[in-house]
Amino acid sequence: MRKSQSSSIDYLALLPEWLRELLLESDDFGEHEQRMKFVIRLARLNVDNGTGGPFGAAVFESSSGRLVAAGVNLVTILNCSLAHAEMVAIAFAQRSLASYDLGRQELPEHELVTSCEPCAMCLGAIPWSGVSRVVCGARDEDARNIGFDEGSKVSDWPVELEKRDIEVVRDVCRSSAVQVMQHYHVAGGEIYNSRKA
Amino acid sequence: MRKSQSSSIDYLALLPEWLRELLLESDDFGEHEQRMKFVIRLARLNVDNGTGGPFGAAVFESSSGRLVAAGVNLVTILNCSLAHAEMVAIAFAQRSLASYDLGRQELPEHELVTSCEPCAMCLGAIPWSGVSRVVCGARDEDARNIGFDEGSKVSDWPVELEKRDIEVVRDVCRSSAVQVMQHYHVAGGEIYNSRKA
Repeated sequence: MRKSQSSSIDYLALLPEWLRELLLESDDFGEHEQRMKFVIRLARLNVDNGTGGPFGAAVFESSSGRLVAAGVNLVTILNCSLAHAEMVAIAFAQRSLASYDLGRQELPEHELVTSCEPCAMCLGAIPWSGVSRVVCGARDEDARNIGFDEGSKVSDWPVELEKRDIEVVRDVCRSSAVQVMQHYHVAGGEIYNSRKA
Repeated sequence: MRKSQSSSIDYLALLPEWLRELLLESDDFGEHEQRMKFVIRLARLNVDNGTGGPFGAAVFESSSGRLVAAGVNLVTILNCSLAHAEMVAIAFAQRSLASYDLGRQELPEHELVTSCEPCAMCLGAIPWSGVSRVVCGARDEDARNIGFDEGSKVSDWPVELEKRDIEVVRDVCRSSAVQVMQHYHVAGGEIYNSRKA
């Protein structure tokens, strides 16, 4: 009953050129801090290249640190309110492994590393992705502080994720992640909440 | 600072062929019930064509009933856990109007019509989309009854949306929407929650 689809589409063309180039030279990443520094670098490059908001994310193999896929916020250049960094990273990781479930038994465990805690949408997407750990840089209040709406999240969302066997690690390099957001804010970066928020 | 991107990608190739053909012959839709019948038909066709789960959604201009974009659940064929019907419909509507905000002042008001109440991810995505109304067929418990996980939603989510000036209309043709889900269930359709759920 299951069919395959759309193998002819060049998904990579969705990513900005600078990111495609960066991915060619990216290696494996050891510790959480190293992985976080990488996604914060993506967030910064996204701002500097004018390709979107100050957010970066990536999916890694948890044990080996292999980079599976990376994402940045592409809401404005793709004209797509769903294209948050976490969503882009998850979609590309699943595409790369040809699995809608990154937690499939035959696969090694995967983690999502994100420069900022997830908004309500990305939070809802995490259990569907199959990752078994989420590592966060800035807090969601840091994003709200520069004008971003984070949506209506269940209170105690880390507990909700942990009930689903998804570990949450917070505040990794938080101040560096916040710096990138403030840089975006000071430079007059677009706050792309919908009008109704 | 804003750049455009990826105009060369044939996004329509992401949709199943039956849906692309159906969209060519689709006209405007008057009342909520007519719009709902259309998305339930999409859900049913998605099951019958083996292209995904028993869910359909579409974005309409609220007043005129013009169909802006349609989506079905494409999780399995796209290998993408994010490809719920609502997300597909929102992404294509924004693409079609070249706006990440369907509530932009120059645009007429838009509504999302979905054969089932949104899961936690799609619920989080709705405020970012810019729609001003959500019309739902089946209840989320109907989806849970056949094995789908709906995620951790804020309690009283319709109230939360209405606080953001997004009207919620529930139970439109609910029994027809449930019938499609049961048809999928009885036929042994894949339940594509991640393993960890």
